Amino acid sequence: MSRFSFNQITAKLWDLPEMIAGCVEAGVGQVALWREPVAEYGLARSATLVRDAGLTVTSLCRSGFFQAPEWFDDNRRAVDEAAALGTSVLVLVSGGLPEGSKDLAGAREHVADSIARLVPYAAEAGVTLAIEPLHPMYAADRCVINTWDQAMAIAEQHPVGQVGVTVDTYHLWWDDTVLEKIARAGERIAIYQLADWITPLPAGVLTGRGLPGDGCIQMRPFHDAVDKAGYTGAIEVEVMNDVLWQRPGREILAATIAGYRSVR
Amino acid sequence: MSRFSFNQITAKLWDLPEMIAGCVEAGVGQVALWREPVAEYGLARSATLVRDAGLTVTSLCRSGFFQAPEWFDDNRRAVDEAAALGTSVLVLVSGGLPEGSKDLAGAREHVADSIARLVPYAAEAGVTLAIEPLHPMYAADRCVINTWDQAMAIAEQHPVGQVGVTVDTYHLWWDDTVLEKIARAGERIAIYQLADWITPLPAGVLTGRGLPGDGCIQMRPFHDAVDKAGYTGAIEVEVMNDVLWQRPGREILAATIAGYRSVR
Repeated sequence: MSRFSFNQITAKLWDLPEMIAGCVEAGVGQVALWREPVAEYGLARSATLVRDAGLTVTSLCRSGFFQAPEWFDDNRRAVDEAAALGTSVLVLVSGGLPEGSKDLAGAREHVADSIARLVPYAAEAGVTLAIEPLHPMYAADRCVINTWDQAMAIAEQHPVGQVGVTVDTYHLWWDDTVLEKIARAGERIAIYQLADWITPLPAGVLTGRGLPGDGCIQMRPFHDAVDKAGYTGAIEVEVMNDVLWQRPGREILAATIAGYRSVR
Repeated sequence: MSRFSFNQITAKLWDLPEMIAGCVEAGVGQVALWREPVAEYGLARSATLVRDAGLTVTSLCRSGFFQAPEWFDDNRRAVDEAAALGTSVLVLVSGGLPEGSKDLAGAREHVADSIARLVPYAAEAGVTLAIEPLHPMYAADRCVINTWDQAMAIAEQHPVGQVGVTVDTYHLWWDDTVLEKIARAGERIAIYQLADWITPLPAGVLTGRGLPGDGCIQMRPFHDAVDKAGYTGAIEVEVMNDVLWQRPGREILAATIAGYRSVR
């Protein structure tokens, strides 16, 4: 369990202080936080809370959304928040096509350019930008970076440690070429996240993910691939699921730990 | 309009004879048929109907589903049906994972093996098996062949004309490597289908596709790619959409023609 990290979105409705207390009680030493609940509770208070609880923050989710007019200021704020929370990993979800646009290639270029603009600020703060390729079903409305290759092509324009890639089983499992690429990625792997694929997908396809073991993704080959790459960092379980979210936080945490154990 | 083909599923609730009459009235010379409505109306009657109307059948949709116990007999029947309808193109959708299975790689091997078993029968009948890579969001429950490369790798194990690939904009648009691959595919392109990507996706993600021009896919680069490959065959519009299906057949056909014209 030493590498397990509880990603806050998995219990979206659980108050931050209760979530922290619940993790401590359960012997969980690592959490991943989300910007919105942190902002709601207060950045400084959140940082104090996790520090006093002795928890490690494995990543801050999430910034990016480079098609938004305010993207630059917002992403710099996200870097500051990551640093304040004591995590060196900021997960980036690129955002979809601009409203009314069909220029997918152009949107992807804009993401690469935007990250290049953001890198100096993040590097100065000691924060690694962890580009997350999202499943191709999100290409239009959430994230135009949809494959491992696309994320790596951007990351490799920058020094190791400044820009990396997020490995999330949910987004990558369909790709028959991805395991060998992950295994060769070395220190480019910034964070490793688990979620399982269950069907049918719900409307909007965002909140129908499964706890590890509940779906059809073989997790062991992913574990082996990140191992081969030399990744020894946290393994977050990050699951967005409307039904799961309705359960009490402690039950969600227990189910998440059980799911994690079932696939380790 | 000479290359336009009206894919029957676009007006799923339109009776076959009325659909045929509607196409003739509208000056549409080509249709793609689906197995279920053809079986319902009767194979021989359907074949007579389209022949008497002077229509060309550009493809029969669809066979495959190789995880089903009866797949071999069912696919041979589909080959016979294609031949009886006078089309040389049978679209193959591979089917998803077997119930309870997580072995995606194994399912993909099984598809390749199954197609190899089917090829002699189809070749004898003069029917090209048109492997359709479906969007990665269908990998678990509908089709384990999800990329152009996967489909081509199977097709290329067989002679040109016996096994080809279906180019469908809806399934391939997210892939930043696909256009150049299509342009190099030569005679492997068995059929070309248009549908547009609209969001949000509905539950089940099957019946929320858009008419060409209504979504965010740039169709011209796809046209250019199939042109470069030397493809001169039919361009089917194949749209599954719950809202569209509620309209009268003639309105759907008119909207489909308008959508097609808007992107040509």
